[in-house]
Amino acid sequence: MPRVVVPLAGRPYDVRIAPGLLANAGRLIARATRARHLLIVSDRRVDSLHGAALRRALGREFRIDRAVVPAGEASKSLAVAERLYGAARDANLGRDGAVLAFGGGVVGDLAGFVAATWQRGVDFLLVPTTLLSQVDSAVGGKVAVNVGGIKNSVGAFHQPRLVLADTDLLATLPRRELASGLAEVVKYGMIADAALFTRLEREAGELSAGHPGRLSRVVADCCRIKARIVGEDERESGVRTLLNYGHTIGHAFEAVAGGRLRHGEAVALGMRGAARLAVGVGWLSEGDRERQDTLLDRFRLPARFPGPRVVELLAKIKQDKKVRDRRLRFVLTRGIGSASVAPPIEDAEVRRVLAALLHS
Amino acid sequence: MPRVVVPLAGRPYDVRIAPGLLANAGRLIARATRARHLLIVSDRRVDSLHGAALRRALGREFRIDRAVVPAGEASKSLAVAERLYGAARDANLGRDGAVLAFGGGVVGDLAGFVAATWQRGVDFLLVPTTLLSQVDSAVGGKVAVNVGGIKNSVGAFHQPRLVLADTDLLATLPRRELASGLAEVVKYGMIADAALFTRLEREAGELSAGHPGRLSRVVADCCRIKARIVGEDERESGVRTLLNYGHTIGHAFEAVAGGRLRHGEAVALGMRGAARLAVGVGWLSEGDRERQDTLLDRFRLPARFPGPRVVELLAKIKQDKKVRDRRLRFVLTRGIGSASVAPPIEDAEVRRVLAALLHS
Repeated sequence: MPRVVVPLAGRPYDVRIAPGLLANAGRLIARATRARHLLIVSDRRVDSLHGAALRRALGREFRIDRAVVPAGEASKSLAVAERLYGAARDANLGRDGAVLAFGGGVVGDLAGFVAATWQRGVDFLLVPTTLLSQVDSAVGGKVAVNVGGIKNSVGAFHQPRLVLADTDLLATLPRRELASGLAEVVKYGMIADAALFTRLEREAGELSAGHPGRLSRVVADCCRIKARIVGEDERESGVRTLLNYGHTIGHAFEAVAGGRLRHGEAVALGMRGAARLAVGVGWLSEGDRERQDTLLDRFRLPARFPGPRVVELLAKIKQDKKVRDRRLRFVLTRGIGSASVAPPIEDAEVRRVLAALLHS
Repeated sequence: MPRVVVPLAGRPYDVRIAPGLLANAGRLIARATRARHLLIVSDRRVDSLHGAALRRALGREFRIDRAVVPAGEASKSLAVAERLYGAARDANLGRDGAVLAFGGGVVGDLAGFVAATWQRGVDFLLVPTTLLSQVDSAVGGKVAVNVGGIKNSVGAFHQPRLVLADTDLLATLPRRELASGLAEVVKYGMIADAALFTRLEREAGELSAGHPGRLSRVVADCCRIKARIVGEDERESGVRTLLNYGHTIGHAFEAVAGGRLRHGEAVALGMRGAARLAVGVGWLSEGDRERQDTLLDRFRLPARFPGPRVVELLAKIKQDKKVRDRRLRFVLTRGIGSASVAPPIEDAEVRRVLAALLHS
């Protein structure tokens, strides 16, 4: 079974990737934490599809309480976190208990924030159920809720004890959800792995169709890249910033779209924008920009999002955590497979690129 | 100027203790953090008494925004934290900014929680203004808010970059506030320092009257004890538990008193209860119990708190973070100056001791 170790000093943890892992969850989790009391946090959709199977797999080893939140980004709020704290209290979840996130990125971020702060921090376990969360948010310990209209403005770094990515769960994903995950996969290719990028070009059709074997290999590759980066820079003071490729513009689109764009779709727009900026500063060839955009097209990821105004997007970008002294800095690629933080870019140039993403 | 180093691996920090420190805050804080943008969190009382002086001392080196919360435990809530997140957003406080807590324990715990979680953690600075916070909550990095009716149920470990304890600020403390701080001072004597305890007995009158020199020395001694303990056990998996002497019963009283007991007053009741339990298990002599209680009497700290029912208090105690498997464990003293976690104690014995604290 593919196993990736996230090499954090003092508290490394495993990411296991395989079809059918859920059935072994009890044994694997019992080895990773001393907790024997779990609060399972899930959303309605995942709970109704797979909740019973997870509980069956865990029932022998653990005392289980569960909390179900509505699906969707709106659940990443302090109000929903407060409801989960109430569930933890009612379940008498002590410091020696653990929170298990069973769902996609929203559930992982929310439940992780609750795990990071309940009783000043309890053990955290992740069973990601979407491609997006398996390749991205489940590895690395970033947890957060959205406060004051800013995405992930309140959060913590709280590493899980174990991540179990059962790629069988991807079979029940809606098409747009799968495509959203593939956007983050393209990101890994662009910033860190030209060979992965080439494979994605070759296998785009099968991946889009949800081919289990192809997807498993991709998940393992992405987790390996992310684990290496997080191991070098847990707190995002250096190389980890590169994982934000496409996210500065992407988060702005996500913020103004009010739920009409999925995270990966917004990131796809952000990567298209970033590639234009990279061409503009002479880092990326026009040909490589086209390769990226063609691959995104094949995954049916959006190239345009009409509606918002440029000035709105620019204001959102300037609220970003990565923006310092209000000067716009972006992660850009120097060819496929390599990325860096670029020198500040003039507002006018950013406006030009945003305009191109708005007009159909 | 007395200086205590909290010896945490990788990120030690200073606690400075002296009268008049506030005037040097700009220089000292500029050395301790790279942040040049501060969000000062304070309560109404402290802000009106000393806010202008602090801002004057900081104005040259820092861009300053401020947020003022109502005084009192009720401000340690997610709702007030959310207002502070709003203030941080409106101030455009970035990852390179810092939160400065200027006040007592409530402000420190609340602002510290906001610092721990805003943008996944920004620098935190503490200028404690009460005796209680100078000797206790300002050192050690425990930050929290009260959620679901449980004190400190949601929080983090977030160490400050610097603690500035200006003992001149104690001159404006109300008498009950000073006494509340002295309760925690007695705690340090009981758990870790027989010589300090003897000095407290000798200087009780002067300390009660707010003698600045005597108080400064006591603050420095307590910070030294706490820094040593926190340095050994930041996350409270061992020796740090001993700092909870008097707090298990104390928190229960605080919870049911609804604001009628100050923290130190509740801890005084808790220490009186713990001493009775310690006599009961044969760890403490009746004479040493009397020495503790007499010292608490001289600081005019309560010996009784009529009103709540034993069963209510017992239920609160069982919600405590330190209670495992619902068996009651207490930190008890083995003579003055030495403490350990005692073996589980029967509910009946705890009830007997609680009853003694309830009846006047």
